[in-house]
Amino acid sequence: MAKINDNYLKLQAGYLFPEIARRTKIFGEANPEARLIKLGIGDVTEPLPPVCVEAMGQAIDEMSKRETFHGYSDGGYDFLVNDIIKHDYQARGCEVAVDEVFVSDGSKCDTGNILDILAPGGVNTMAVVDPVYPVYVDTNVMAGNTGGANGTGGYEGLVYLPVTAENNFVPALPDRRVDVIYLCYPNNPTGSVLSKDALTQWVDYARDNDALIFFDAAYEAFITDSQIPHSIFEIPGARQVAIEFRSFSKNAGFTGTRCAFVVVPHEVMGTASNGQRIELHHLWSRRYSTKFNSVAYIVQRGAAAVYSNDGRKQVRKLVDFYMSNAGIIRGTLSEIGMEVYGGVNAPYVWLKTPNNQSSWDFFDKLLNEACIVGTPGSGFGAAGEGYFRISAFNSRENVNEAMARIRCQFSI
Amino acid sequence: MAKINDNYLKLQAGYLFPEIARRTKIFGEANPEARLIKLGIGDVTEPLPPVCVEAMGQAIDEMSKRETFHGYSDGGYDFLVNDIIKHDYQARGCEVAVDEVFVSDGSKCDTGNILDILAPGGVNTMAVVDPVYPVYVDTNVMAGNTGGANGTGGYEGLVYLPVTAENNFVPALPDRRVDVIYLCYPNNPTGSVLSKDALTQWVDYARDNDALIFFDAAYEAFITDSQIPHSIFEIPGARQVAIEFRSFSKNAGFTGTRCAFVVVPHEVMGTASNGQRIELHHLWSRRYSTKFNSVAYIVQRGAAAVYSNDGRKQVRKLVDFYMSNAGIIRGTLSEIGMEVYGGVNAPYVWLKTPNNQSSWDFFDKLLNEACIVGTPGSGFGAAGEGYFRISAFNSRENVNEAMARIRCQFSI
Repeated sequence: MAKINDNYLKLQAGYLFPEIARRTKIFGEANPEARLIKLGIGDVTEPLPPVCVEAMGQAIDEMSKRETFHGYSDGGYDFLVNDIIKHDYQARGCEVAVDEVFVSDGSKCDTGNILDILAPGGVNTMAVVDPVYPVYVDTNVMAGNTGGANGTGGYEGLVYLPVTAENNFVPALPDRRVDVIYLCYPNNPTGSVLSKDALTQWVDYARDNDALIFFDAAYEAFITDSQIPHSIFEIPGARQVAIEFRSFSKNAGFTGTRCAFVVVPHEVMGTASNGQRIELHHLWSRRYSTKFNSVAYIVQRGAAAVYSNDGRKQVRKLVDFYMSNAGIIRGTLSEIGMEVYGGVNAPYVWLKTPNNQSSWDFFDKLLNEACIVGTPGSGFGAAGEGYFRISAFNSRENVNEAMARIRCQFSI
Repeated sequence: MAKINDNYLKLQAGYLFPEIARRTKIFGEANPEARLIKLGIGDVTEPLPPVCVEAMGQAIDEMSKRETFHGYSDGGYDFLVNDIIKHDYQARGCEVAVDEVFVSDGSKCDTGNILDILAPGGVNTMAVVDPVYPVYVDTNVMAGNTGGANGTGGYEGLVYLPVTAENNFVPALPDRRVDVIYLCYPNNPTGSVLSKDALTQWVDYARDNDALIFFDAAYEAFITDSQIPHSIFEIPGARQVAIEFRSFSKNAGFTGTRCAFVVVPHEVMGTASNGQRIELHHLWSRRYSTKFNSVAYIVQRGAAAVYSNDGRKQVRKLVDFYMSNAGIIRGTLSEIGMEVYGGVNAPYVWLKTPNNQSSWDFFDKLLNEACIVGTPGSGFGAAGEGYFRISAFNSRENVNEAMARIRCQFSI
């Protein structure tokens, strides 16, 4: 009988969001009259920007005619990749080549799949910030880069870099050599950012220690402070040590439309077991052409529309809308005496649970007493225990209603 | 420095289709006036069925309004999964449960990614039919399930089951125990099919030997013989041993729109290294929710439209169109004295190269003398040497023109 990947058996419970969905479903079934407000999963709620709707409508029209039909593509279309380079990189002083941009169907897939090109089985020492987007951890468990669960929400063998209010949510450099570091900024779940100086320290660490940085910038559009870097490639030397992940999910609301990309500079190297230095670009390119068949033409047209003049205005408006929600959430929670973080350069507000409740206790309390779904901080890692994430992705009406309920139930 | 997945270094040359693209590009640059006809890569050429265009247009409209906007989905939408079950399975007497259908963005991705849930590093013995869709082989190389290249187009450690004219393109059962067998029927590249009896032998083999079958049925819509099974689940006992891959790429022309699915029955088991038996469904489900974020709502609406009354008629018409092309190709090549196979229940014609030319020599000859791009049989494996694949995916005009050129240049 086929032998399974034993590492899967190390995985604890469900992936965080299915567990939230399960509890929410049970509550909904027991309370069919309750009007739930979901501020849990970081899913957008506002419609696609009109430019995207229009571009996709035109693309469908093209697909309906033989002369303009599109079949397989080798990867991202030039019209999209060139826009990405111009607006996301050249506009910020970064040089990225056309063949360094790999268009994909999502950063979740990309941050998971990237491990395919690295040695599995714990050969590399992996570091994550704690709390952390669970996909980074779970995919390392699956790849055998960890031991078993350590009983405190983490896994043996993974290097956790805790961020809490005590260190102002800035991770310290690892106290040992690591091979790979995952950095997500603006951060999910804490809503914190790294200054240019702080990010420079990480790039320097990686260069000094021959380490690799996986930089997840899915939330870069939410940065309001002009001093905060949007791309790790704004930091000198980053092209030698970093791979960057970007997405259209949160800026243009593509969570249900699926488009993202990875930038793999040619300079980033790994070593074979015989010591040979190999461009990671070469390996990722091989994986991409062998295990993936690019993104729908229609969707790539929609994504490219984001970079048009109107598109950029419409995305700005969408982002501003969510950030106003974040401001309302921050404001309300502060006013009633809660300790709140994030929500200024990111669509997530990170709060300290009142009275030192556990994250899941607070989840259940918020669900049962206010019919609000949030995300328990401990679901993101041990250092998230005692914290809670509230997402700004919702209608103004729902955010206001949720804040009214919280003000009513939770004023301290 | 991060250690790479050394197995990637075993991969020989490029993936087949990039190499064809490279030679074609060189020829095109040297002969800018040449009117190339591409019968190489199995890419469709006809526009999307009108029902799909209409359904996707409506879906885009829904995405433009807050009330009907769709964000993340946990997997395939019920409207699609229920249609799949009703039309692809119940209509053929197969029982498949809703949670056994995993909607994805392509069979290439699925057949590659499925290896994630099996033990890597050669713990399992893998068997492929030779010639074979290169993705099965290359992804096994990447997973460390093979040794190095064996110098004859294959890899050490992989069990190859040759099919040639001598055995009528029906693979013999392996002469040793294997853990996993890839079967693709209707077959890419040979265009052959397996009768119900032949497929039953495979299911029985798998049951007797505790083996697992990956059944790729991406071309089932092209079956014209009513006695040929469309799904492996038509064979009694297959639910215990098989995982099936299906796609909308070739029936509805979704190569540039991206939608497919995998069926993983709950009965299919694997063993952990401690001997524990585990449902592969459980593992695949975990991979799916952790490393994937489902398929665009718009695309799923397009795929579901394929199952409407009009959709089924339109797909039938598309398939019939390509199969008429296949008939023209088969007819012409036979008339001029070539040995041809396939093209009856599959959109591929598999021909013996004239005068025992090597596959790549015939590729170059066809390209240089007739400006036609086909696919060298040896690109699919050692047993494909001396054969050549011609795809029926093109306009009638191009197929007729290509056959006229071949008749002129290659009459024997």
